[in-house]
Amino acid sequence: MKELAAALPHGRLLTDPDVTASYARDRTFARPGIPRGVVLAESVDDVVATLRWASAHRVPVVPRGAGTGLAGGATAVDGCVVLSLARMTRIRELSPEDEIAVAEAGVITADLDRAAREHGLMYAPDPSSAGISTIGGNLATNAGGLRCVKYGVTRDSALGLEVVLADGQVLTTGRRTVKGVTGYDLTGLFIGSEGTLGVITAATLRLQRLPGPLSTVAAEFASLRDAAAAASAIIAAGCRPSLLELMDRTTLQSIDEWKNIGLEPGTQAMLIAQAEGPPDEMAALCRAATFVATSSSEQEAAELIGIRRLAYPATERLGQCLVEDVCVPRSVLPDMISRIEEAAARHGVMIATIAHAGDGNLHPVFVFERGLDEPPPEVWAAADEVFTAALELGGTLTGEHGVGLLKKRWLELETGPVVTELHHGIKRLFDPLNILNPGKAI
Amino acid sequence: MKELAAALPHGRLLTDPDVTASYARDRTFARPGIPRGVVLAESVDDVVATLRWASAHRVPVVPRGAGTGLAGGATAVDGCVVLSLARMTRIRELSPEDEIAVAEAGVITADLDRAAREHGLMYAPDPSSAGISTIGGNLATNAGGLRCVKYGVTRDSALGLEVVLADGQVLTTGRRTVKGVTGYDLTGLFIGSEGTLGVITAATLRLQRLPGPLSTVAAEFASLRDAAAAASAIIAAGCRPSLLELMDRTTLQSIDEWKNIGLEPGTQAMLIAQAEGPPDEMAALCRAATFVATSSSEQEAAELIGIRRLAYPATERLGQCLVEDVCVPRSVLPDMISRIEEAAARHGVMIATIAHAGDGNLHPVFVFERGLDEPPPEVWAAADEVFTAALELGGTLTGEHGVGLLKKRWLELETGPVVTELHHGIKRLFDPLNILNPGKAI
Repeated sequence: MKELAAALPHGRLLTDPDVTASYARDRTFARPGIPRGVVLAESVDDVVATLRWASAHRVPVVPRGAGTGLAGGATAVDGCVVLSLARMTRIRELSPEDEIAVAEAGVITADLDRAAREHGLMYAPDPSSAGISTIGGNLATNAGGLRCVKYGVTRDSALGLEVVLADGQVLTTGRRTVKGVTGYDLTGLFIGSEGTLGVITAATLRLQRLPGPLSTVAAEFASLRDAAAAASAIIAAGCRPSLLELMDRTTLQSIDEWKNIGLEPGTQAMLIAQAEGPPDEMAALCRAATFVATSSSEQEAAELIGIRRLAYPATERLGQCLVEDVCVPRSVLPDMISRIEEAAARHGVMIATIAHAGDGNLHPVFVFERGLDEPPPEVWAAADEVFTAALELGGTLTGEHGVGLLKKRWLELETGPVVTELHHGIKRLFDPLNILNPGKAI
Repeated sequence: MKELAAALPHGRLLTDPDVTASYARDRTFARPGIPRGVVLAESVDDVVATLRWASAHRVPVVPRGAGTGLAGGATAVDGCVVLSLARMTRIRELSPEDEIAVAEAGVITADLDRAAREHGLMYAPDPSSAGISTIGGNLATNAGGLRCVKYGVTRDSALGLEVVLADGQVLTTGRRTVKGVTGYDLTGLFIGSEGTLGVITAATLRLQRLPGPLSTVAAEFASLRDAAAAASAIIAAGCRPSLLELMDRTTLQSIDEWKNIGLEPGTQAMLIAQAEGPPDEMAALCRAATFVATSSSEQEAAELIGIRRLAYPATERLGQCLVEDVCVPRSVLPDMISRIEEAAARHGVMIATIAHAGDGNLHPVFVFERGLDEPPPEVWAAADEVFTAALELGGTLTGEHGVGLLKKRWLELETGPVVTELHHGIKRLFDPLNILNPGKAI
C-alpha cells in the first residue's frame, strides 16, 4: 500500500476503514467485502498507476462511479482497492458542429446534458439516476432510462472510449465519426461489461438535436392490461413517444398516500406519454382510459412527469425495496404484468411495478420489511418466478441495470453454456490475473 | 472432400474448378486463391457440418453472402472451402407487433424491406447494393447505406444473432427485446467481424415504422464546399434528413455523358436531400445553390434520387473503379474533399467522389484503365494520401465497407498496437485453428 500511495499524488489514496466503508457498496443489498483502500482518481495517470500496482501485486480492483447501481456491480470484495472515477469530471470537448462531446468517466450524466443544451443539443440517455450517476457508470452498465424508447440506450450514444486495461495499458476504441467499421467492435464490448474488462476513463459521445415542443398525456385505466394496450397502440400508430411510462395501482397508491394526488378508487394503472406535436392522437389512442389529462405547456408536463419521478421514493417509504429490471417483447407486456401479479399473490409479497412500456422494460419493485440485511426468502422466490417468466416470454433478465452480483444466479438460464464459455474466455483474455471487478457480470 | 460430401445433403458441395472460380471473389481487385470446393448451405446443419469437417482437417473456410463486398472480405484463399449462405433465404418470422423480423443470412436485404412494408414497416439499412446483397453479408461488414444518416447502420438494427463457431457449435447472442444488458455484447462483436469469428446464419432485426410523406430537394452548386456547407446547414437546422447525398463534378459528368441530365457547365456539385415534411426549409438552406429542384411527389423524388443511383454505373463506364470509403467528422467534410482533389491532381488520377454527406462518409471512386489486374501504383499512392488525410482529420479508414484485404495495410495506422494485440487475442479465442476467413479484417 505504501508503494501505491507513492505512485499517486498526495491525498488520492484513502485507507481509513470508516471512510473506505462508504465506498464499499452501491444501491443494492449485496453484502460488501472490506476494501483495503480507495483511490480517488483525478486523471488517467492515476488509473494507470493503480492498475499497474494492482497487477504487480494481484490486488482486485473494483471500479466505481457514483455508486448508484442497482445490481451490485460496484460492491467491494475483501481486500480490494476501490477505484473511484468520480473526480474525473472534465468535459474535454463539446463540438456543436459534429454533435459530439468527449466526457470523462466521472461527469454527472445530467451535467453533460445541461452542457449540451447550451448549444441546442442534448445528451439523450437519462437513467432515473441521471442527476447523480456518472457517464462512466452509465457506460459500464449500458444504462437505459426514460427517453431511450426514442433515442436508444447508452451504447447507442457512444462512438468511442478511452480505456485502461488491467495491466495499465491505455487504449482508445472507436472513433469520432458517426460511422466506422475498422476492426472489431471493442467499444461495444467494454460497454455493459461492468468494469470486468477494463476501466473506462473517458468517452466520445453523440449528442442529439433538442426536439420541438413536446406534448404530454397522462391517462388512468381500470386495468393494467388496458393501459398496456394503449401503450402498444401509441407505438403502433407511429407517435414516436420520447417517454412512455406505466405505473401500477401499488405504485400510484404509495404516491397518493405521500403526496395526495387524488387517486380514484377505480384506477388500477396510469400511463404517461410524451411526444413531439399535439397530444390529441395519443389521447385518442387511450381508448379505455377512465380519465385523460393532456398538456402542451412545459410546466404542466413537468407536473405530470413529476408523478412518475415520485415512484421510487414513494415506494421506498413503504419499506426496503429490491428494484428489478426484466424486459420482454412489447407484445407480451400485459402477460408479463399478469405473471408479476401472480408471483406477488403466490408468495405474499408486495410488488409495485413501473414500466418503460414502449421498450417492454418492467421494474417490479419488491417491498419488504425494514431492518433486514437482505431480501427475505419469499422475495427471492417471487423474484425467481418473475425472472423465469420473463425468459419464458422471450425476454431478458435485465433491460438496463446489469447483472452485477444480484442476477448471476440466473444468468446461464438466459445465455446457455456456449455463451458462458465465450464470456469467460474474453474475461481471461482481457484480465488474465482476474483483478478487474472479480466475480461480477458473467 | 469425400467426407465433407458425405456430411452434406446431395448437391450442396461443388468442386468443378470452372464453377468454384465464380465464387472466389467479391467486387474488388483482390486476386483470389483457388478454392477446393464451394458449399451451398441451405440450413444451419449444413454450416455446422462444414465447420466441423473444416476444424477436423484444418481447412480454411471463407464465408460468403452475395459477393457484393468492396473490400475483399469474401476473397477465396488457396485450398479453402467457400461457404455460401446465399441459399438460406427464409424469413423465419416477422412480428409487426414487436417490430422485429428473424431473417436467415441469405435473405436479400431489399426482400426483407419489402416483406416489412406489407405491414407498414421497413428494414432501414439500405446499402447501395440492397437489391442484391444479403443480410448475412450486411451483418458481416456492418453495412451502412443511404438511409443510415437517420436510421443508423446495420448494427443499430440487429438485436440478436444465430452464429456457428469455428468448431461447429451453434450459439445465439442478444435477444428479441429492444433493450437488454445480460452478458458481454457478443452481437456487436460478431457484427462487422467479416466472418473471422464465426458464421452468422440468422439474425433478429428491428424494423422501423414507415415515415410519413417525404419531400426531396436536389440542388446544384458552383463549388463542392458550398454543397458541403448546405449539407451541414440542413443537419444543423434539425431537418432530420433520411438521405443526404453529395456528388462531385466528375460523377455528374459521367452521368450526364451517359443519360444526358442537362448538366450546366458551372455546376461543380449536386446535393440530394430527403426528409419528412415540406421541402421549403431544406431548399432555403441551400443558400449558395445555382439551381434547386424540390418535389413532394413520390415519382419525381424517385427520378431525383435515380440520378444518385446512376453514380456507380456511370463511373464504371469510364474505366475500372476502386471504390473507397473514408469517413470524417461532418465539420471537416469540405477539408476532406479538398484533400481528395489534391491527391487526384498530384498523382494524375481521376477520382469521382460521392458522399453520404450527413454522415461525413465519402466514397472517392478511383478510375483507371481497363484490362489491368489491379489498380496501378499511382492509384494506390493517391489512395494512400486519401486514407492518411482521413485519419489526420479525425476520421476512419472505412465508414461502411470494411477492412477485408484491401485496407489491412493501413489498419494499424488507425488502431495502434494495443488494439491490434486485442484483435488478435479475440481472433485466437474464437478461432484457435485460424480457419475462419484467415487473413481478413484484422
